[in-house]
Amino acid sequence: MTPEAAFIAALKGLASHPAARGLADDCAVLEVGGETLILTHDMMVEGVHWLAGQDPADVAWKLLATNLSDLAAKGAEPIGVLLGYSLAEDNSRFAEGLGEALAHFAVPLLGGDTVSNPGAQTLGLTALGRATCHPVPSRSGARPGDSVWITGPVGAAMLGFEALSTGNTSTDTSAYRRPVPRLAEGRALAPLVTAMMDVSDGLLLDASRMAGASGVTVSLDPALIPFPADLPLERARDAMAWGDDYELLFTLPPDTAPPCPAHRIGSVLPAGPAPLLLGGAPLSGQLGYEHG
Amino acid sequence: MTPEAAFIAALKGLASHPAARGLADDCAVLEVGGETLILTHDMMVEGVHWLAGQDPADVAWKLLATNLSDLAAKGAEPIGVLLGYSLAEDNSRFAEGLGEALAHFAVPLLGGDTVSNPGAQTLGLTALGRATCHPVPSRSGARPGDSVWITGPVGAAMLGFEALSTGNTSTDTSAYRRPVPRLAEGRALAPLVTAMMDVSDGLLLDASRMAGASGVTVSLDPALIPFPADLPLERARDAMAWGDDYELLFTLPPDTAPPCPAHRIGSVLPAGPAPLLLGGAPLSGQLGYEHG
Repeated sequence: MTPEAAFIAALKGLASHPAARGLADDCAVLEVGGETLILTHDMMVEGVHWLAGQDPADVAWKLLATNLSDLAAKGAEPIGVLLGYSLAEDNSRFAEGLGEALAHFAVPLLGGDTVSNPGAQTLGLTALGRATCHPVPSRSGARPGDSVWITGPVGAAMLGFEALSTGNTSTDTSAYRRPVPRLAEGRALAPLVTAMMDVSDGLLLDASRMAGASGVTVSLDPALIPFPADLPLERARDAMAWGDDYELLFTLPPDTAPPCPAHRIGSVLPAGPAPLLLGGAPLSGQLGYEHG
Repeated sequence: MTPEAAFIAALKGLASHPAARGLADDCAVLEVGGETLILTHDMMVEGVHWLAGQDPADVAWKLLATNLSDLAAKGAEPIGVLLGYSLAEDNSRFAEGLGEALAHFAVPLLGGDTVSNPGAQTLGLTALGRATCHPVPSRSGARPGDSVWITGPVGAAMLGFEALSTGNTSTDTSAYRRPVPRLAEGRALAPLVTAMMDVSDGLLLDASRMAGASGVTVSLDPALIPFPADLPLERARDAMAWGDDYELLFTLPPDTAPPCPAHRIGSVLPAGPAPLLLGGAPLSGQLGYEHG
């Protein structure tokens, strides 16, 4: 067991409240008054979650976008965010980018904390949303016979990261720098899906997690998986294992069509020896980005 | 303007939602579903907010306690917390301490995130509570003629910190290691106070902030300020400037008595040239801990 796995196992022992969903979901789901609140907190660390030297405005955008993506996977409407910020030499670009992103997604900044930090810059963001439908989608509802879908291609963030880290300026890097959470799609899908999550750690790993949480096997057809037009064919496996795409992965009951653009990429089978099949075969090796 | 002050000024421009209270309060105060939610997020950094080598169980306790103290200052009842955790070599003591603290304060862990971090260990915690009375106390309601009170002594955390950092084992260090947020006191006081906040950054600095937010002058009587029994007389000024005590500082209208044990330490005057007077005189030099 890795140190992270051991720590998370210990935390799961503490998270017995039903709102915590056993820490097995992207968000907490909490009944308060007459509303169902959706709560998530994601961190980002310099050199781990972004490249040292990246424009802080893009980092701010991504910090907000990744948290809103967790809300999108619950079909939630964002209410507001709290920021945890460790000061850097230049903080003005971060504030600019945060302002731009908050305005773009129409989400208010509600509070937070600012600290000095002698090490790597470390950021946290808590996003709060309200559920728009009940039950709130989870990872664990996929059933044999369901179809498996994704809202868009995987691999664009990988290509953007690679271009950014090699200084290649001819490739569009915005998918890596400024991901767009699928908030509208999440809300449209939430009443229909049997399971939903965002693809933040790579399609293969996240699909395998959905299979595990649902107690099923997910079978993906590699010929159906959408990739960016400029992805070299031999990079398809890498694109499926790379994270940061923030598309929504979801399952639908038989004969249900998605209410938004989406790609059917596979089907749900009764639980077999492997949680995930790709082209009918189980996978070996690292499936994706174990955060981290 | 320090980099932190400039950044916070930029954030204030983004925090126009009334729930943010202009980022001038300890918490966001948000109406949701017929309830009034109280939200706070505080960070702690190794070597900045705790001593390298301190027991991680105490760090976990303090991370929870400092956030609950912000809820206490609003008279709020805790609902739950989200943890942002960067992995260390040994994470098990942190999990133990967190479990102990969550159980002690009867607060559920709802979610969070775990990351690797090549630099100083950096922690964040978001605490969510519900208001128990309306209006929710703020820093800005102190009025001339009010009396000024504190729920307990200042300086015990300073003595604990000094003993811990010098290896002096004859002094009780628990006030520094395991502060106890004044949740019950905050709830009892909330319906009565004109202003309330916790003393996290030092009595003098925090009293001066309350005066500034309220547009008044706070006049403290040094003879009335409570100190721990073992504080040397010549350390009184240090104790008033040191933070980490997490007592509640509050103001009451004339002829109102506090419903819990508390010490009357001064009075509120119309705004004069200085926001804070000690023994009738304005103060110079650093008032307290500018976080940080």
